[in-house]
Amino acid sequence: MIVLKNIQQAQVIFKNIRTKRQTIGFVPTMGALHNAHEQIILRSKKESSVTVVSIFVNPLQFGPKEDFNKYPKPFNKDLSICKKLKVDYVFAPTIKQMYPDKIVYTNISVKKYTGILCDKFRPGHFNGVATVVTKLFNIINPTKAYFGEKDYQQLLVIKQLVKDLNFTIDIVPCETFREPDGLAFSSRNKYLSKTERNQANVIYKSLLYCKQLILTKKFSLSKCINYSKIFLNKNILLPHKIQYFEIYDNNLSPVNNDVKQIKPNTTLRIFVAVYLGKTRLIDNMPVNI
Amino acid sequence: MIVLKNIQQAQVIFKNIRTKRQTIGFVPTMGALHNAHEQIILRSKKESSVTVVSIFVNPLQFGPKEDFNKYPKPFNKDLSICKKLKVDYVFAPTIKQMYPDKIVYTNISVKKYTGILCDKFRPGHFNGVATVVTKLFNIINPTKAYFGEKDYQQLLVIKQLVKDLNFTIDIVPCETFREPDGLAFSSRNKYLSKTERNQANVIYKSLLYCKQLILTKKFSLSKCINYSKIFLNKNILLPHKIQYFEIYDNNLSPVNNDVKQIKPNTTLRIFVAVYLGKTRLIDNMPVNI
Repeated sequence: MIVLKNIQQAQVIFKNIRTKRQTIGFVPTMGALHNAHEQIILRSKKESSVTVVSIFVNPLQFGPKEDFNKYPKPFNKDLSICKKLKVDYVFAPTIKQMYPDKIVYTNISVKKYTGILCDKFRPGHFNGVATVVTKLFNIINPTKAYFGEKDYQQLLVIKQLVKDLNFTIDIVPCETFREPDGLAFSSRNKYLSKTERNQANVIYKSLLYCKQLILTKKFSLSKCINYSKIFLNKNILLPHKIQYFEIYDNNLSPVNNDVKQIKPNTTLRIFVAVYLGKTRLIDNMPVNI
Repeated sequence: MIVLKNIQQAQVIFKNIRTKRQTIGFVPTMGALHNAHEQIILRSKKESSVTVVSIFVNPLQFGPKEDFNKYPKPFNKDLSICKKLKVDYVFAPTIKQMYPDKIVYTNISVKKYTGILCDKFRPGHFNGVATVVTKLFNIINPTKAYFGEKDYQQLLVIKQLVKDLNFTIDIVPCETFREPDGLAFSSRNKYLSKTERNQANVIYKSLLYCKQLILTKKFSLSKCINYSKIFLNKNILLPHKIQYFEIYDNNLSPVNNDVKQIKPNTTLRIFVAVYLGKTRLIDNMPVNI
């Protein structure tokens, strides 16, 4: 396994790999690797000749009051996980390498899927994501890039970015991996206290609950949402706050509140964001009706 | 010479060329090719194994009141010029190919060199340029890309874009080519009436005049500008309007108004934009002091 910190050096190596007609599978991460990352890395290893994992906590996608500074950075542990999985290259640039000027002059905005869900509560977040992902794509030159469905809105933004900027990169959505009790894997789970962790799977259960309510076709979507919020609030006994609990179709378009009016074979998706103590957790779940 | 209109087809061809370790010289144009384009194309042919000329009048970089609709589009003449020069590929996509959605969702902004010169008078123009150039870079995958110094601010914006987004493309600045009487080549010269054309070279002469004034080191820069404006207004006898006449250093930073305070070996650059009738013409000139 080769660890690259220098952008120019990385670009020479990755261009060279592509010139030899080898394929590059790219798993962008912010480090603090967990089981879901491992599954995605293993998938990339199956599907491409060379797998590149990037580890970079991107300051540009954090708001001024967000957790950039305390975001976990267990770099050596991350490296040993990558080594165990036989990752070919880890790309781990410094912030100074990625943003050499004090000001970030060039910004990319994707004005689709905006004003809802995470974009509503994290203004500028997806611009930061789009900008760093474009940089990483230009550095790594991947054939395929893997993005988790847990960050579903991000996945759609990246797909739009790739389409609009004519990247020839196959964006591969990866299903959400969960702990045995249902909690979606996330680096931010590390923030949870033991008692918070014990109750965190209620978020997943509230999605399941909502899904079942929808499938009865007895309630409007807004009712399903309200009942699910009540369910969630009843079952998390620690301080918490629901940031959003919403339902859209799979393309994040609004859907008819009357489930019976929605045409069959539509996939809905339920989205939730919850503060459990100070930790913000998100999750989502598809519902085929 | 192969004319490509389809983006996907172009991407396969250009990726293939790069995989064979051949270099691609890219000359982005909005068509209406003139002598300066020809010189740049010849330079690219010398410096790269394959030369690609793009012809695309990019609606995104025109303001709502600007000349997008009447911008000259002599496509067949352009093709015959490219053929004559033995260009390898002409990439000429339709607007629908480049912007398939009715809304352009993804935009790139470069917040450097802003608020002055063309950016002041054409808000959004450089975002439109940055966005289309990024698309073209991703489609054509060039080794080198050629940009004229006549659009000096654009050249610096593109260099910043390439740096910030980690493109591995060598941006080659090309000196301004001029008609025998000094007028800088521009597709917009075609808009000029015969009498306007006869007086248009006063713009160039005003730059020369200003340069000479600066080099005497007897006047402040603001005085040099004022005298040059007077010179220009005196010598153009047709309806016209100076939009800007400004002096910066070569990096578009402000410079000391007192020429004697500027340290030796600094390159200044004089910039001018003039409406001659309804035609907006720009030019600039370096001054080594």
